[in-house]
Amino acid sequence: MQKLVVIGAGMATGRMLEHLRDTDPGAYDITLFNAEPRGNYNRIMLSPVLSGEKSFAEIVTHDEGWYADNAITCRFGEKVLSVDTERKVVTGEQGEVAYDKLVFGTGSSAFIIPVPGHDLPGVVAFRDLEDTTAMTEAAGKPGARAVVIGGGLLGLEAAAALRLRGMEVTVLHIASHLMERQLDPAAGYLLKKDLEKRGIEVLLEASTKEIIGNGRAEQVNLADGTELPCDIVVMAVGIRPAVTLAQEAGVACGRAIKVDAQMRTETPDVFAVGECVEFEGNLFGLVAPLYDQAKVLAKTLLGEDTSFAMRELSTKLKVTGCDLFSAGDFAEGEGREDIVFRDPARGIYKRLVIEDDRLIGAVMYGDTADGNWFFGLIKDGTDISEMRETLIFGPAYQGGGSVDPLSAVAALPPDAEICGCNGVCKGDIVAAIEGGATDLGAVRAITKASNSCGTCTGLVEQVLSVTLGDDFVLPTAQPVCGCTDLTHEDVRRLIKAQELKSQEAVWQELGWKTRNGCHVCRPAVNFYLLADWPLDYRDDPQSRFVNERNHANIQKDGTYSVMPRMWGGMTTPEELIAIARAAEKYGATVKVTGGQRIDLLGVRKEDLPAIWHDLNEAGMVSGHAYTKGLRTVKTCVGSDWCRFGTQDSTGLGIKLEKKLWGSWTPHKVKLGVSGCPRNCAEATCKDVGIICVDSGYQIGVGGAAGMDVKEVERLVDVKTEAEAIEWTTAFVQLYREHAKYLDRPYKWLAKVGLDWVKEVLSDAAERAALVARFELSQSVYQKDPWAERAEPEAARRFQPLADLTVQAAE
Amino acid sequence: MQKLVVIGAGMATGRMLEHLRDTDPGAYDITLFNAEPRGNYNRIMLSPVLSGEKSFAEIVTHDEGWYADNAITCRFGEKVLSVDTERKVVTGEQGEVAYDKLVFGTGSSAFIIPVPGHDLPGVVAFRDLEDTTAMTEAAGKPGARAVVIGGGLLGLEAAAALRLRGMEVTVLHIASHLMERQLDPAAGYLLKKDLEKRGIEVLLEASTKEIIGNGRAEQVNLADGTELPCDIVVMAVGIRPAVTLAQEAGVACGRAIKVDAQMRTETPDVFAVGECVEFEGNLFGLVAPLYDQAKVLAKTLLGEDTSFAMRELSTKLKVTGCDLFSAGDFAEGEGREDIVFRDPARGIYKRLVIEDDRLIGAVMYGDTADGNWFFGLIKDGTDISEMRETLIFGPAYQGGGSVDPLSAVAALPPDAEICGCNGVCKGDIVAAIEGGATDLGAVRAITKASNSCGTCTGLVEQVLSVTLGDDFVLPTAQPVCGCTDLTHEDVRRLIKAQELKSQEAVWQELGWKTRNGCHVCRPAVNFYLLADWPLDYRDDPQSRFVNERNHANIQKDGTYSVMPRMWGGMTTPEELIAIARAAEKYGATVKVTGGQRIDLLGVRKEDLPAIWHDLNEAGMVSGHAYTKGLRTVKTCVGSDWCRFGTQDSTGLGIKLEKKLWGSWTPHKVKLGVSGCPRNCAEATCKDVGIICVDSGYQIGVGGAAGMDVKEVERLVDVKTEAEAIEWTTAFVQLYREHAKYLDRPYKWLAKVGLDWVKEVLSDAAERAALVARFELSQSVYQKDPWAERAEPEAARRFQPLADLTVQAAE
Repeated sequence: MQKLVVIGAGMATGRMLEHLRDTDPGAYDITLFNAEPRGNYNRIMLSPVLSGEKSFAEIVTHDEGWYADNAITCRFGEKVLSVDTERKVVTGEQGEVAYDKLVFGTGSSAFIIPVPGHDLPGVVAFRDLEDTTAMTEAAGKPGARAVVIGGGLLGLEAAAALRLRGMEVTVLHIASHLMERQLDPAAGYLLKKDLEKRGIEVLLEASTKEIIGNGRAEQVNLADGTELPCDIVVMAVGIRPAVTLAQEAGVACGRAIKVDAQMRTETPDVFAVGECVEFEGNLFGLVAPLYDQAKVLAKTLLGEDTSFAMRELSTKLKVTGCDLFSAGDFAEGEGREDIVFRDPARGIYKRLVIEDDRLIGAVMYGDTADGNWFFGLIKDGTDISEMRETLIFGPAYQGGGSVDPLSAVAALPPDAEICGCNGVCKGDIVAAIEGGATDLGAVRAITKASNSCGTCTGLVEQVLSVTLGDDFVLPTAQPVCGCTDLTHEDVRRLIKAQELKSQEAVWQELGWKTRNGCHVCRPAVNFYLLADWPLDYRDDPQSRFVNERNHANIQKDGTYSVMPRMWGGMTTPEELIAIARAAEKYGATVKVTGGQRIDLLGVRKEDLPAIWHDLNEAGMVSGHAYTKGLRTVKTCVGSDWCRFGTQDSTGLGIKLEKKLWGSWTPHKVKLGVSGCPRNCAEATCKDVGIICVDSGYQIGVGGAAGMDVKEVERLVDVKTEAEAIEWTTAFVQLYREHAKYLDRPYKWLAKVGLDWVKEVLSDAAERAALVARFELSQSVYQKDPWAERAEPEAARRFQPLADLTVQAAE
Repeated sequence: MQKLVVIGAGMATGRMLEHLRDTDPGAYDITLFNAEPRGNYNRIMLSPVLSGEKSFAEIVTHDEGWYADNAITCRFGEKVLSVDTERKVVTGEQGEVAYDKLVFGTGSSAFIIPVPGHDLPGVVAFRDLEDTTAMTEAAGKPGARAVVIGGGLLGLEAAAALRLRGMEVTVLHIASHLMERQLDPAAGYLLKKDLEKRGIEVLLEASTKEIIGNGRAEQVNLADGTELPCDIVVMAVGIRPAVTLAQEAGVACGRAIKVDAQMRTETPDVFAVGECVEFEGNLFGLVAPLYDQAKVLAKTLLGEDTSFAMRELSTKLKVTGCDLFSAGDFAEGEGREDIVFRDPARGIYKRLVIEDDRLIGAVMYGDTADGNWFFGLIKDGTDISEMRETLIFGPAYQGGGSVDPLSAVAALPPDAEICGCNGVCKGDIVAAIEGGATDLGAVRAITKASNSCGTCTGLVEQVLSVTLGDDFVLPTAQPVCGCTDLTHEDVRRLIKAQELKSQEAVWQELGWKTRNGCHVCRPAVNFYLLADWPLDYRDDPQSRFVNERNHANIQKDGTYSVMPRMWGGMTTPEELIAIARAAEKYGATVKVTGGQRIDLLGVRKEDLPAIWHDLNEAGMVSGHAYTKGLRTVKTCVGSDWCRFGTQDSTGLGIKLEKKLWGSWTPHKVKLGVSGCPRNCAEATCKDVGIICVDSGYQIGVGGAAGMDVKEVERLVDVKTEAEAIEWTTAFVQLYREHAKYLDRPYKWLAKVGLDWVKEVLSDAAERAALVARFELSQSVYQKDPWAERAEPEAARRFQPLADLTVQAAE
């Protein structure tokens, strides 16, 4: 009988041994080494053990009886010291054993980030029973705190388990969403929300700087200064194939032990299986391919002809209540399309990725019942073109024709829930309509349907339409874009009401129909978020138009225009000379603009950081001529110079510009201050136009001189410059907080009415609050993008950024 | 008996001898020297002799009989060679004569301008009978031509006389109006018109360069290149006291022989009288003071105590049909006020100058009947405050109360002429009203009253008011200002219809109530004249607002702002550096303006020529930021740079600016050209705003963004850039030709209607004609004021100019 030596009693070798014995019990004389002092157990079930939901005994797959029954010589708790492939001998701590066939099943070890303090007691991985026991012990202390580094599968399972054991748990994750390898940001958002619901703190984009403590881990410090006291630190950031023994034995390794489709290494009679192998460049960590490999290896050892093949994988997380599923490839790509379904009320997100009429990826959260069906479609490469319209609803909906939404609604029974948030059924709505509610607002007032997240608005309208027939006319309010049925105003309202502070929160909670918006809604949502939550939300440059991303206006020929800010139009000989020199140096064309500044045209993209640097050196900052934000404050020369000037209009303009610059607004904002009613600064066709008069300042708002021409309407007359600045700032902030993205103030005013704005701003407390909120926002956003980007380090990173090239210029 | 020797037999000595003999025939043994071979004649009556209206015999005042009767020893035709005041001897060509008392009456000689050719035969003065004879002889040749240099009293009399003799006569006058020492411009205008009516050509501001001819004067050449062939040249530019003999005798002279109030020189027993004397710094040329002096001298010689005193003078011109009168002081001055009366139909102008309730000057033309009455008021210093309202109408109107114009009109008999131009009486108008004409237009249509010069408009309205009572509502049309009852539109219409080509013509022919307008009407009339008659009328800087005069905007602190033109906003590093250097050099503050250029503020007036020179050197011209004229053409970067630009908006803007700059317009004109409907150049609130679209150019007109905000209305869509320029130019010219001064295009359009403008401009021939007229005007006015004024010569003349400081800025 041939001698088979297996090094490592993990899930892969265990399964392989089962196959071997089941198929041909007498084929081999088997010796099984394991460094752990025990045999095979279901390592992926350590989480329930950790949580206390299962005992270790329950997850042991092969007990002593099985090894005995199957005549396997177990050398558990004994490390293998070396392998001699010439002599075909394995040397363990207890002595040599010869082999005819050798299997490496050495698995992997946890990757420990080499931060200072990583080797302190109390820093553990989550890999084996010893780790589990250490954690369980730590959890025994009342009020104990755990920091889990790593928001992947293993880390989250550990976190959830520790939380179940009553610990205060913080998860640190380096990426911008959890489980980024298995989930897209939308599912990551829901997962995070669910974890938070159960009391787990999740910190994203968290970079661990060090672990400190007196003799053992007591605190984790992050790069951003956050300090997290703790009793235990769990490192769950990944695994590394354990290949040292194989390498020392001269077995060919890449990132792991290289095997072919029959699990043969490049060394005769030496095989490998599980997390320690590399096949066609791939490593393996999930259980399904390991089991495949185990089967192939068993057959190979028995002389059967078979091959291991990569196959689609699906992921589930074993955390109760966190129902997620992902499979296949859900990266973005040319020619790929998404089908997205969201049900905010039930916390459901489903996304299918289609390519060439085939499903190639699926991510689901909240309702994963159809996961396996989708997984089957992915694995089988089924042509889904026939069922595309209803595909997202799963197998139950297939087989029929295309869906007419109205007849679908008509067919709903009266007790079908329409509004999940408020538990309103179709019958309630029909009753309301029959009671006289003939539009959305009335139905909403009576039934509360669509009054919370708003995503059932379309459905409610369909009920109205079905019930009223031609008497129902769809309201004119336009949704933001095809990604949602909500209007901009709805989105703004809901972002505030539901305290949505991230794009993913908006997509999910407002039931976006697309994965992460489009070029229409993303810039809008990005603005709404940063306007409402300046401290919580971080501006997303990828959701900006190209000019805002590059902080310069791209021109027809691909070059850029560069425009320094000139406060109130004032400049100096020194600045003029610096601009002239820059124009010469970078071959720019020079044009004076109507916005009282000087434009340098034709600057090559690669020269941008350098020209910014030069202009910065001369004391100038970006003029933001490319933003939806404050452009210029046009001024006349005012009382300083003009014989007619009644006030220091230039000075006021400069003060306003210095206060307001750098703030993002729904659309560009232009101000003007004229020193007298002759209005040389053309202030009365600006978004905010101030006319100085003897008695003070007349503040007008809502002017325009672009696609439309419109004169400002009088907001208020004030006596002092300070009041003029306060009112203007409060007005701008009110506009920032309420206007639809890409509505200039005059369009916004036409919707909300000047009277309302006057009423709000007339309240001194509210005015002060608006100014305070504006100033808070400026504490984050008022910074010169040139200075930031002209630094050599940043300049090197100044690379082309793809996607949103559509631009709303005017 | 004492010996009296008199040197010179002129009008003064003649009159003195008369007094002497009349009072005390035996007081002196008298010897009378005269270089002319004849005795006293009335020199001022040489004009009628020249014209042939009188013979010389008729103007002799003292003939041989008189000298004989009065025992005067006449030594006529004998020059006095010397005077010995020690020995008290006069030496004539025929020998000595001793004196006890000596009188210098040497008179004056004609001033001859020392131009090349002044000494050619055929160049004569107009001083004595010999000159007169020479002219008479020249006039004998058929078709003979005379050039009279000098448009004062004497020259005009000569000119009129020569014209009566049938000659072609041209009068050259160096000043801007005739008889500027005796007349104001208004009277000078009427005088010129009358002279021209009788066939005399009058060239004002004519500077004689040379007189040329083969052996005798044959042609006069002017500095401006005009060539005037002629048979005789009459120099009548002034006189010089003849004082050589007195100076050689050691008698004290200033500009003439100094005398005291008793006509005594500083030399004992030596006296002087007439044009050869200087009294208290004054010289004398008119006959009245000479006669006064003659009387004083006679009394002095007779030992009587008397004194000569300066007194008010009045002037009349002895030219039949040129009825003028002037007296006193009619210069402008602080605290002086004018009362002006004009009757254009009868060619009457009267102006009284009042100071401290006294009449101090009077100028009249056309009706001088009351001249002597006014002269009396002046001389007597009468307080005229009681009769002020009716003073101008003369003594016949005095003694009543104040005049109510309506009751005055009511009191008029039916045959009282209301409209002098068309001979329409009050009865005709009343008949028209009773026939149904209830407004001015209807009366005008039926009777023609007020349809020509328009000055009786107010009277006709009063007749309407008197006849209709409350049924008549005065039309809302506002007169230009208090100087006239005419509206701007009337004035424009009449300037064209009556071919009025000078300010004086407007004042007189349109019956201005003031001497030469005010700060309101003068700039307007100045513009109308230059717009309608670019080749005939010359712009009057004194009728411009201070900024236009100085070609820079005056600032609050008296410094100026200087703004170079930047074609379409485009500039270069070189220009920026030049501007920066200039700012440094002249201590200017730098501001970028909304008009796409760079303003240098705080330049001292005396530095203006130098800074202009510097900027000129760098290739820049004035930006005309101070004019009622083309300001800027705002542009966006257009198809050259912008991703959205459909046409070369910058290029079109530059072309338009290069075409239109330098033209005067009723108000400032701003253009804008945007490369696409996003309208970044804010073109649609400009006077002319062009929006480039794929299919061509949308031309809008009548936008505004100053005191008012208004969007342009569409004038026309055109396909090509050339058409866009043609339409824009034609529109601007139509505006120049028709708009009220200080009406921006949008205000003008509101009056005439866009439809009318469209109709006019739709006619291709009319459009082309408008462009041609614009180009003609530009041939005169499109020039850089900086270049003109930065020349060293002009710079020296760059002096403060008084008066119109009121400014219509906006």
